[in-house]
Amino acid sequence: MSPRQQPVLGVLGGGQLARMLALAAAPLGVKSLVVDSAADACAGQVAPLVVADWTDYAALEKFAAQVDVVTFDFENVPAETAHWLAERVAVFPAPQALAVAQDRLAEKTLFRECGLSTPDFMTVDTREQLDQALARVGAPAILKTRRLGYDGKGQFRLREVADADAAWAALGAQAPAHGLILEAFVPFERELSVLAVRGRDGDFRTWPLTRNWHVDGVLSMSLAPAPDSDVLQERATELARILAERLGYVGVFALELFVRNGELLGNEMAPRVHNSGHWTIEGARTSQFENHVRAVLGMPLGDTGVRGMSAMFNWIGELPEQTAVLETVDAHWHDYGKQERAGRKVGHATVCGIDAGALAERVQRVARLLDRQPQAQPVLDVLGD
Amino acid sequence: MSPRQQPVLGVLGGGQLARMLALAAAPLGVKSLVVDSAADACAGQVAPLVVADWTDYAALEKFAAQVDVVTFDFENVPAETAHWLAERVAVFPAPQALAVAQDRLAEKTLFRECGLSTPDFMTVDTREQLDQALARVGAPAILKTRRLGYDGKGQFRLREVADADAAWAALGAQAPAHGLILEAFVPFERELSVLAVRGRDGDFRTWPLTRNWHVDGVLSMSLAPAPDSDVLQERATELARILAERLGYVGVFALELFVRNGELLGNEMAPRVHNSGHWTIEGARTSQFENHVRAVLGMPLGDTGVRGMSAMFNWIGELPEQTAVLETVDAHWHDYGKQERAGRKVGHATVCGIDAGALAERVQRVARLLDRQPQAQPVLDVLGD
Repeated sequence: MSPRQQPVLGVLGGGQLARMLALAAAPLGVKSLVVDSAADACAGQVAPLVVADWTDYAALEKFAAQVDVVTFDFENVPAETAHWLAERVAVFPAPQALAVAQDRLAEKTLFRECGLSTPDFMTVDTREQLDQALARVGAPAILKTRRLGYDGKGQFRLREVADADAAWAALGAQAPAHGLILEAFVPFERELSVLAVRGRDGDFRTWPLTRNWHVDGVLSMSLAPAPDSDVLQERATELARILAERLGYVGVFALELFVRNGELLGNEMAPRVHNSGHWTIEGARTSQFENHVRAVLGMPLGDTGVRGMSAMFNWIGELPEQTAVLETVDAHWHDYGKQERAGRKVGHATVCGIDAGALAERVQRVARLLDRQPQAQPVLDVLGD
Repeated sequence: MSPRQQPVLGVLGGGQLARMLALAAAPLGVKSLVVDSAADACAGQVAPLVVADWTDYAALEKFAAQVDVVTFDFENVPAETAHWLAERVAVFPAPQALAVAQDRLAEKTLFRECGLSTPDFMTVDTREQLDQALARVGAPAILKTRRLGYDGKGQFRLREVADADAAWAALGAQAPAHGLILEAFVPFERELSVLAVRGRDGDFRTWPLTRNWHVDGVLSMSLAPAPDSDVLQERATELARILAERLGYVGVFALELFVRNGELLGNEMAPRVHNSGHWTIEGARTSQFENHVRAVLGMPLGDTGVRGMSAMFNWIGELPEQTAVLETVDAHWHDYGKQERAGRKVGHATVCGIDAGALAERVQRVARLLDRQPQAQPVLDVLGD
């Protein structure tokens, strides 16, 4: 037999998403090669790491020659880098699709074209336009950079019109480079996300809707399948499918949604595997990571059915003591191998149960042992209904 | 905060077991460091690899200084190497426990001391002793090397007493170095294995019994939980516990058993994670790989309950076309990233189902699409009962 060649997945960015992609790729026989500017990028613990920045074209040239396909751990890779790579090797999602998700204006415009309502918004390039936008959108509202925002970064919440000066002081300097957008603050009832995957052949699947809770703009807890969401599931799946087809999207993405008066509103689209889908590692028959690898390499997609119910605790800034999770039945620990730092996502835990009752008992146990009742309470409130 | 240090797991041998240990260690925040004499050892795709042989003490000294604990992918690491390392760093299972499992005579003697019957056996050092052993044990029988055997290697089956010359021609040369043992060939009804894990603190758990089918001495299929084994489960668990305690064993091991007239007979003990436990990756709440990592590092053990039923197809020599598995619901592909070679274990697939009916349907689908009905038939026969 001639020596076999394993496919190689190139990943731009070496954080926890790249790490979990590489861990999912290995059983498929897929090797990973990761690019990050930091020599201690945590994906480098489980896959070879090229230390280079996004403009190191000599390193990127060599990288491109070693991989079969390129994908993203980090959606804010400069568009020029993505385009440059796409001339040399298959890149999924394609840079054009990435560009839409990188720009809040293009994203919201697309949402509306696809029939998904969004909160009112207006672009803001000057201090004067901020006043005009506030007059139209009203307060409360959120001023955001159009590009390069994630996890609540590059955002300023205006409680009233008089907060305009403070908002401009915080973000005005970024207007020339990244653009700004003012969005109405929607008094939503729930936050949901739909994780979806589209293959190179157009095959499209979603996982059940996930309900999410954020603290200070950062995901704190997820629960899936989101209870009482049967009607919304169908609508969310259809919207995700239309979006994916419009963009010719290949790979996993998350569509973040608000529910207001029982209707879905589009918040944003993350063009990659997403924190609100981490529960799929243990909670679904095929994880978001495995299906992303399959999709970008042109393999058949795996079944997105669930094994029961799952809740995810996000560990922000520091890892709690792991014993409480290790000793709880069907609770699963995920340490990303990163140094602890305020605000940084350093790990998560997924707790599974065959039904709401079994899950609630385990979530409660973990929360009690870790003294994290406030974090878990919203999930327990829903499960206890 | 001061920089955190992640624990480092050292693994002797860089095959698929080391690879799956490293993949299970990462989410626990545990780094792996693997030693193998082959630069292309497949575990090196997911963890740093030290290329060195078992007598390269300079390399092993450096390795020992970098790890918190040492364990085994390969049980035939020379005893001197294991003892030498144990003077420098924690080694689990301990070299003394390993030594018993490495020697078929010591192993069978221990089984009997623990109350586990074994097929008749007699040691053989000379051609003359082979005749004496045959007179006592009878034919059919199997002549085996006492040490360094696995997957049917170092074995010769004697159908009748007249095969003695052929058996001696095949294995006699190994008698001085490794010793030989003649074992009665038992007309068993079933082959089972119990996977067990013991923590540093003595905590002990087993997974449900696995039923196994071998072809040419190599595992071909596994099914778990083994149907109709409730009575045997309790007895097997108790025997495994006694064995583990006698040996002061830490980590996962497999106890391979024959069932004859409804009674258990001890075949052999594998002092490591084991091929017949690969189904635990998807089929159990904690896999054998994760629990081995937890055990040797002194973490609490995870729950060994199952999620339903699982069947494992072993891929020997070459990988079949993967699409059939990727497109089957709850079927999971495992490519070890090895070059294909006759007789070599290159991968496996685990198929799961909530019950025997669901599992049988999926096993049948995979077998049909891959034209592997003969491999799957024994499992289907049991599931169809």
